Amino acid sequence: MKTIVLLSGGMDSAVLAYKLKHEGHEVQALMVDYGQKHIREMSFAHQLTQELDIKHRIADLSALSETFLKGSSQTDKSVPVPEGRYDDESMKKTVVPNRNMLMLSVAGAWAISDGADAVAYAAHAGDHAIYPDCRPQFVSGMSRALLMCDWKQIRLYAPFLRKTKANLVSLGVTLKVPFEKTWSCYKGGDLHCGKCGTCTERIEAFKLAGVKDPTVYGKAKVTPKAKAKKSGSRRKKGKA
Amino acid sequence: MKTIVLLSGGMDSAVLAYKLKHEGHEVQALMVDYGQKHIREMSFAHQLTQELDIKHRIADLSALSETFLKGSSQTDKSVPVPEGRYDDESMKKTVVPNRNMLMLSVAGAWAISDGADAVAYAAHAGDHAIYPDCRPQFVSGMSRALLMCDWKQIRLYAPFLRKTKANLVSLGVTLKVPFEKTWSCYKGGDLHCGKCGTCTERIEAFKLAGVKDPTVYGKAKVTPKAKAKKSGSRRKKGKA
Repeated sequence: MKTIVLLSGGMDSAVLAYKLKHEGHEVQALMVDYGQKHIREMSFAHQLTQELDIKHRIADLSALSETFLKGSSQTDKSVPVPEGRYDDESMKKTVVPNRNMLMLSVAGAWAISDGADAVAYAAHAGDHAIYPDCRPQFVSGMSRALLMCDWKQIRLYAPFLRKTKANLVSLGVTLKVPFEKTWSCYKGGDLHCGKCGTCTERIEAFKLAGVKDPTVYGKAKVTPKAKAKKSGSRRKKGKA
Repeated sequence: MKTIVLLSGGMDSAVLAYKLKHEGHEVQALMVDYGQKHIREMSFAHQLTQELDIKHRIADLSALSETFLKGSSQTDKSVPVPEGRYDDESMKKTVVPNRNMLMLSVAGAWAISDGADAVAYAAHAGDHAIYPDCRPQFVSGMSRALLMCDWKQIRLYAPFLRKTKANLVSLGVTLKVPFEKTWSCYKGGDLHCGKCGTCTERIEAFKLAGVKDPTVYGKAKVTPKAKAKKSGSRRKKGKA
């Protein structure tokens, strides 16, 4: 089975790509530039495609960002990336409007163009509280739409829907996923910040799975002075 | 209700936009550049938004064309636009991979960003034989996915699913749709060619509805000599 996986460069999609390869799928990776601040993740995704020795393509949707993907801290310069726990209400600012439908629709187009059988993405149970387009009901609709979008049926594969991120860490260990070569932080700095929602979730997932976290977090590098300056400039941006 | 309509510049989406406006929707039009050869249709769509006095936005997906939308006569230079009846098997060459899911996903993103309630497209019964992403089963999946893609439900409105194109001509007449300001031809020349599938369908729809067709077709302008030259150059392109 030829399967296109949405590969962000994060932990979840990395585990999914390794799982599919392990199961014998002919895996191809789709990376999407939708104008995300943490575009840095894409170089990690690229490195993963090399480790896995799989074909990849990049879809450039960055032109959509300004008009169609407004209001998200991931794409909108005027909205700062929130810090705190992943399931906190404030994390809803990180939702990118209709991101998964957009990316799955490109994956579906590529599947039809290239004769692939399925598309896959790594939505997991920990996402449901914040990301509406990771919920089982969304997957069920998209699944039906992808089956019917062409004369050949395209299958949607979302095997982590009922798994926690800690489950994915455990699975990743057995699949030998190089977690040190994945990127989670929404802030897109040189190191993981350790404070934004997705960093907090990353830290907790390793802890819950009882696996040593190989990530280098940048917390220690922020001096109190620099921190004060930083939050000042973020408040300014928030008002703009 | 604030509703985003996919507006191509063709007859069907024009009738839909007029219908929605007539019903009191706050209508906004989404036009999509997906690298179509008949990009000429977009200037007709633009003119319609002026007639209707509605807001519009253009989504630039042309970067996707080469890699993700291959094999269609609409986007692929190496595939000539077929001539003949609309429901002929050869017309399947005009299918653009996953076009409607792509366009509806952008419309959904815009709806979320802009606080709209619904997205609408003009798939009709005459499309089902050729375009898989105009079938009721596809609409049913997309409908569910759009309802669940955000914390606010986005409704999918496809009121022509069981109507013929002739029905749309009749409805358009009552709604005073300026059909002479719509564009159907897939070849994208200066005039409608009168021979490609969508021109053939347009001619038949007016005939079946018993409505005078205001379209100027370019058939008479093609001299035998010019025709021979033209088909020669198309064959050349087909080999490239």
